[in-house]
Amino acid sequence: MKRRRPGSSPFTSPRKEKDHVEILSGVFEGKSTGAPITLWIPNLDHQSSSYDEVKEVIRVGHGNYSYLKKYGIFDYRGGGRASARETSVRVAAGAVAKQLLGDIDIQAQVVEVGGETSNFKAILEKVMEEGDSVGAIIECIIKNVPAGLGDPIYEKMEANLAKAMLSINACKGIEFGSGFSASKMRGSEHNDEMEDGEFLSNHHGGILAGISTGEDIVFRLPFKPTSSVKKPMKTLSTGGRSITYSPKLNTRHDPCVALRAPVIVEAMAALVIVDFLLLNNCSKFEKILL
Amino acid sequence: MKRRRPGSSPFTSPRKEKDHVEILSGVFEGKSTGAPITLWIPNLDHQSSSYDEVKEVIRVGHGNYSYLKKYGIFDYRGGGRASARETSVRVAAGAVAKQLLGDIDIQAQVVEVGGETSNFKAILEKVMEEGDSVGAIIECIIKNVPAGLGDPIYEKMEANLAKAMLSINACKGIEFGSGFSASKMRGSEHNDEMEDGEFLSNHHGGILAGISTGEDIVFRLPFKPTSSVKKPMKTLSTGGRSITYSPKLNTRHDPCVALRAPVIVEAMAALVIVDFLLLNNCSKFEKILL
Amino acid sequence: MKRRRPGSSPFTSPRKEKDHVEILSGVFEGKSTGAPITLWIPNLDHQSSSYDEVKEVIRVGHGNYSYLKKYGIFDYRGGGRASARETSVRVAAGAVAKQLLGDIDIQAQVVEVGGETSNFKAILEKVMEEGDSVGAIIECIIKNVPAGLGDPIYEKMEANLAKAMLSINACKGIEFGSGFSASKMRGSEHNDEMEDGEFLSNHHGGILAGISTGEDIVFRLPFKPTSSVKKPMKTLSTGGRSITYSPKLNTRHDPCVALRAPVIVEAMAALVIVDFLLLNNCSKFEKILL
Amino acid sequence: MKRRRPGSSPFTSPRKEKDHVEILSGVFEGKSTGAPITLWIPNLDHQSSSYDEVKEVIRVGHGNYSYLKKYGIFDYRGGGRASARETSVRVAAGAVAKQLLGDIDIQAQVVEVGGETSNFKAILEKVMEEGDSVGAIIECIIKNVPAGLGDPIYEKMEANLAKAMLSINACKGIEFGSGFSASKMRGSEHNDEMEDGEFLSNHHGGILAGISTGEDIVFRLPFKPTSSVKKPMKTLSTGGRSITYSPKLNTRHDPCVALRAPVIVEAMAALVIVDFLLLNNCSKFEKILL
Repeated sequence: MKRRRPGSSPFTSPRKEKDHVEILSGVFEGKSTGAPITLWIPNLDHQSSSYDEVKEVIRVGHGNYSYLKKYGIFDYRGGGRASARETSVRVAAGAVAKQLLGDIDIQAQVVEVGGETSNFKAILEKVMEEGDSVGAIIECIIKNVPAGLGDPIYEKMEANLAKAMLSINACKGIEFGSGFSASKMRGSEHNDEMEDGEFLSNHHGGILAGISTGEDIVFRLPFKPTSSVKKPMKTLSTGGRSITYSPKLNTRHDPCVALRAPVIVEAMAALVIVDFLLLNNCSKFEKILL
Repeated sequence: MKRRRPGSSPFTSPRKEKDHVEILSGVFEGKSTGAPITLWIPNLDHQSSSYDEVKEVIRVGHGNYSYLKKYGIFDYRGGGRASARETSVRVAAGAVAKQLLGDIDIQAQVVEVGGETSNFKAILEKVMEEGDSVGAIIECIIKNVPAGLGDPIYEKMEANLAKAMLSINACKGIEFGSGFSASKMRGSEHNDEMEDGEFLSNHHGGILAGISTGEDIVFRLPFKPTSSVKKPMKTLSTGGRSITYSPKLNTRHDPCVALRAPVIVEAMAALVIVDFLLLNNCSKFEKILL
Repeated sequence: MKRRRPGSSPFTSPRKEKDHVEILSGVFEGKSTGAPITLWIPNLDHQSSSYDEVKEVIRVGHGNYSYLKKYGIFDYRGGGRASARETSVRVAAGAVAKQLLGDIDIQAQVVEVGGETSNFKAILEKVMEEGDSVGAIIECIIKNVPAGLGDPIYEKMEANLAKAMLSINACKGIEFGSGFSASKMRGSEHNDEMEDGEFLSNHHGGILAGISTGEDIVFRLPFKPTSSVKKPMKTLSTGGRSITYSPKLNTRHDPCVALRAPVIVEAMAALVIVDFLLLNNCSKFEKILL
Repeated sequence: MKRRRPGSSPFTSPRKEKDHVEILSGVFEGKSTGAPITLWIPNLDHQSSSYDEVKEVIRVGHGNYSYLKKYGIFDYRGGGRASARETSVRVAAGAVAKQLLGDIDIQAQVVEVGGETSNFKAILEKVMEEGDSVGAIIECIIKNVPAGLGDPIYEKMEANLAKAMLSINACKGIEFGSGFSASKMRGSEHNDEMEDGEFLSNHHGGILAGISTGEDIVFRLPFKPTSSVKKPMKTLSTGGRSITYSPKLNTRHDPCVALRAPVIVEAMAALVIVDFLLLNNCSKFEKILL
């Protein structure tokens, strides 16, 4: 939980979201009982009043606009289900899922910020100075996935990972293995040859025809820049008027929302992999479940 | 169905898949009865014998390897559920879904082949000459989607479209709106400003926080090169020996599997959108369903 | 399939439903491949023309009325999805499920016809002479179910068996163990005491709190009399007129639809139990599934 | 909530379950926001210590035995998910569902206790004196259900109601319309004739072929006697020894658990009916949902 929490580096929002997880059910005397494990994360720092300023502003790039269109109600307090806070329960659930992964290892990290693949600190400082934000790319590698996980049509490994990842706020895409680069390659180059029972390359990203091959599962995710910036932007009032909105100078938000996302990516990946282990009745659970 | 079918251009496989669709149930005297509509597409041209040559070859880049690992059985006849033929039922089902879309318009097309954004014919001819294959990018644009479709957490619009698209053979990724480019942008640049009730740009690709905004939904999909090539490639026999396999010279396969895919992309998009219209109880159905 | 088929005793309808099952997919060289097994049962004897007589008659006690109200379309040919023929696919699917049950044994039989618990032949002959029909009770006993199958809230063993059984045509209820008699009993009488690790009685019917106890699972199902009788009955035309309808004298139908139902009950029970074995990751599958 | 709560009549348990419902999400300024409505009912009176006496006793007729077999863990505190308290959330959720029913009216009541159809007070007093318990029958009538609700095969109206009702603790069966009596009737008697567009009887209980007819939906449910009685009963210790257990004399439990169940039955019925209204895209929601 600590990795997701804002306020833990100079580049993340200083709001104090303590993210303290209480276990309301499912654990007794230190063991899971078989009952659903309910995790409860109260929002201790949330002050609806701090949102008064934006009570009638459709914030550019946020979900306010689409939520208003959908529900006909404008709940100006924080982002609700569109808030980055919603991801805290995913991280908590992912932590439980990780207990069931055995030697399957999931690692996600930011590999590119604003187009730069190294020395992110400089670009982040610059963006903060300008009151702006910046996008990034996260790469996730999953090692030791047994070959044979995934189903042929309806529950393909790439499909379910894609659904999970595209449900993370600000994530705007996904590519597996060579991904978009594969579109520029020849088949003879992209095909992963085998020798002595081993793959000689991993352009396929650990998945063929929706089913894991035993190679590392590799995917990359583009994250858009944080929508909240200090520059004035043209937008609408809830009443439909054209306005220009600039947030107060003392407000602070993450200049790069992706910095907090690796732990969320790992959590979602853990949930998908555990789901497949269960779905495919995989022996990793023999000692754990009935 | 004609658009998906191979043998309809010099760049698609000459196998005669007639793809004749029979309606087995659900329609009586020209109207749907409310019963499930069963579409049946017999494979008239399929000859298992033509696969004898590859009875013991794990074909590079195909699902054979992962299927063998999963099921412990090697069904060498065609690709089964991993075959491009599986997509014919998707196209047929999509055709039914399209009847329910009203003025929602879905158009997919190949926009890039082997890294080229125009004059694809030259590169395709070159690839065929070399007995090789090439990847491509398909772009899909959906117009007139009402604002408010999609659900906040579990059934987000991007998530469900991503799951649908990543279930298509050879598709290795997806990006919405600015997609991977968004990772290189500043927030002030990426945010879509509004004026007089209109968006001034569409970097968000028609979806904010999982819910449609009413703008065009735009996404792009990289397709890997066709795995079957005429060049010799190192692989395994089903018995585990290292071998080199070159297919017979007279075999022919698509040099670019993506050329047949736009109609499949459209079909899957139609199914996802209809699913959301139903899920969100949208009025487009008032006259159609009880 | 033979047990379900009509025309196999003097008390079942003489229509020739050959119920020949073709396996369209999922089996290759005598083994399941992991692909879905598609079973196809063409209706060889069906003659829509024989239904001309009832083209505008809402048949009393049939689904015609509710289907017309639901779909606004009157498909007078046979019963469609409300027909007893629909159950043939259940029997076929149940036959596959039974392969996975190991030593779990499911037996259903008619235990009461028209209120009589023995000598059913006399009452059936009388009913046929009168051109009438009669109801019955089927009892099902499932032996060797391992203790611990079933889930506490959403997928309780009784709940899922009840849903499966109440989906069978003409079945109008279900009771487990002592069932309706339990409503007349004292707790001290109904409680199943235990001695030396064994239950001394089985009023609970093999299920406590939604979860199997290892005792025989026992339930009983009332079936209503066949709706089609030769006596004139007051009803509606599809146009809304009050009419009296008597079927032609030479038409023949089952006088007691329950006589054919035990095999359907067994099939549905097999499907539910297999579903729970999978859901609870039960070891009976270790050798069968990945 | 008041109707379900124990301690509100001399015949229900005096435990103080305040059942105070807090709304944790989904409502803002008195209106639903579209977000899931989270209802939270803390258990204020629960004292695990009061269960010390039964720490090693498998209580006859309870879920302890099957839970122990399933999970291998003995959580002696109260009944957990097998407790009658679990139903409080169903009642709360049902209360929300009832807001969406329009003029559909659901009424459940106890119609028989210990085989008596009137003057229940005498039998209940006798049972309490004896330290015993007694079973009962609840009847539920749903008026004004539009014709056409329910699906032909997988989501039949009886099937889904049966699953919902059989998931209620202590409910051991269900019958629709004439139910078990139908098994004793002739078809000519059981068929509901129509005249002037009206049904002349309702043996079918408002449902034909899984779909509502517009008549009252009528079903009856047998409830077993409360398992907890003050008489000594033979059972097992968790260690597997044969023991005889008699609860302390001052313990009190409901002599007839069915007395509190009508409100639970109504809640579950409301949830099923709302589910069908949504599934069938029924116009009752036009003003409520998008």
